[in-house]
Amino acid sequence: MELLNGKDWELLISNIDNFLFDCDGVLWEGNTIIPGGVEAITYLKSRNKRIFFVTNNSTKSRVEYVKKFTTLGYPVEFEQIICTAFATGYYMKNVLNFEGKAYLMGRPGFKQELNELGINTSKVGPDLTSGELDAWSSIPLDPDITGVIVGFDEYFNYKKMTLAATYLSDPNCKFIATNEDNILPTGTKVILPGSGSLLEAVKFVSQREPVVIGKPHSPIFECLKSMANIDQDRTVMVGDRLGTDIAFGNRNGLKTVLTLSGVTSREQLDKELAKPASECKPKFYTNSLQTLTKEM
Amino acid sequence: MELLNGKDWELLISNIDNFLFDCDGVLWEGNTIIPGGVEAITYLKSRNKRIFFVTNNSTKSRVEYVKKFTTLGYPVEFEQIICTAFATGYYMKNVLNFEGKAYLMGRPGFKQELNELGINTSKVGPDLTSGELDAWSSIPLDPDITGVIVGFDEYFNYKKMTLAATYLSDPNCKFIATNEDNILPTGTKVILPGSGSLLEAVKFVSQREPVVIGKPHSPIFECLKSMANIDQDRTVMVGDRLGTDIAFGNRNGLKTVLTLSGVTSREQLDKELAKPASECKPKFYTNSLQTLTKEM
Repeated sequence: MELLNGKDWELLISNIDNFLFDCDGVLWEGNTIIPGGVEAITYLKSRNKRIFFVTNNSTKSRVEYVKKFTTLGYPVEFEQIICTAFATGYYMKNVLNFEGKAYLMGRPGFKQELNELGINTSKVGPDLTSGELDAWSSIPLDPDITGVIVGFDEYFNYKKMTLAATYLSDPNCKFIATNEDNILPTGTKVILPGSGSLLEAVKFVSQREPVVIGKPHSPIFECLKSMANIDQDRTVMVGDRLGTDIAFGNRNGLKTVLTLSGVTSREQLDKELAKPASECKPKFYTNSLQTLTKEM
Repeated sequence: MELLNGKDWELLISNIDNFLFDCDGVLWEGNTIIPGGVEAITYLKSRNKRIFFVTNNSTKSRVEYVKKFTTLGYPVEFEQIICTAFATGYYMKNVLNFEGKAYLMGRPGFKQELNELGINTSKVGPDLTSGELDAWSSIPLDPDITGVIVGFDEYFNYKKMTLAATYLSDPNCKFIATNEDNILPTGTKVILPGSGSLLEAVKFVSQREPVVIGKPHSPIFECLKSMANIDQDRTVMVGDRLGTDIAFGNRNGLKTVLTLSGVTSREQLDKELAKPASECKPKFYTNSLQTLTKEM
């Protein structure tokens, strides 16, 4: 594993056609841009490289992501965005041939993305716990539900867990999750649960394992391949998470660059590197995208 | 493992001083009595046996349990009830010497039990998600919190997960959970998450392991021993869950009786018995407490 300086970066660029970037912790943190990000993307674009943004974050549709990129000053095209909202819809439509209706834990953008891809879903948003616990045994169920999707949902609660678990007690009910990230990066001392944390609760109550769409799992890579002819030898994954971004790159035969601008500290990286066998060891690392453009 | 008939039961009774009964799935299901329960308890009482009710269910205080037992026709004394609400307070006070204030996921009876034992806690009940996700990074925190307790809470939601995870990011913050049961028995097709399912979410987001008070873990046994001088050779645990009741009995050197009136099916029992090594194999089993009293 090597520290990537400006010269290495140039060498890497000359051997790479496809750049896959994670977003949270690489390009931005919350609504704050990570310095050097725009310059790095703009430079690669000027070199005619193909760029995709591959994110596990399920809070937004592709349309919403275009707005976010543009607001923060990142050049972007709709087709470059491979988010789990889109990849989940792609998987359900083209791999699962899903029919019926999905019970969805997710935000409005996720629902919109799924609906536009032809996947029928439940409503999203607040659905409050009410009444005595004894009344819960007769909670109304939607007989059309044939699948449960767990994505990020800040309205996640006991009632939604109950509904998901009850639908999943039918072994024919499909179980799909966007990703397994335990937290969202906030840049403050507040720990915001990621959808992986909601998923753990649903897995445990239902005693079932979902198909997971996001990195490091394969469905999001299959979705990417449907968008572009990817030569894996000439593709790099740039991300801030060892267990998702780097494992995803290694599993799929891509080059990998870890950036320390997100959730992974230098200490955590060293700990991972000390393990005898791990699929989470990056080929290169950098402190942030800024380091690369500054040194060029 | 033997099917317990009336004759065996009589023999067992003559060799046993202390009877520990689980409640949900043994004495009742929801608010419905399981036939034969009252007769069995009344008979053991007439034989001057010591009886304790040892339940992982954290939804009620001891006072509330006395009411429930009495309403359903079970003879009971306050001192016979070893519920996780009480055992958690006992552990925090006498083992942990807990000072400060606990952030509590639980119901009002649990809070009352803890407060009466001198453990200061946060409020319980609804605490709703509100506002844009971006505002969450500045969610108000209580600086007095020095511990997090996860029990059953039908108002469990994303906000409570966020608060628990943020408090637990301080390694000095204590982490205590009542039990790991994944569901509550309902007797209907609705799957109600047990507090173990809420706990999985909090464990995953915080990446921490709690001290678990309830069966099969030791804190609830220590609490029981503080109430009565227990000769383990002359004590039996009667319950409906292999992983909690039966493992608890086996770990503590007690006789064990599984009743099939609750969450465990005959097929699940056979599967467990077929395993070469398991701490969840009961010494005896019965279809319900009714079988015992009917055959006497």
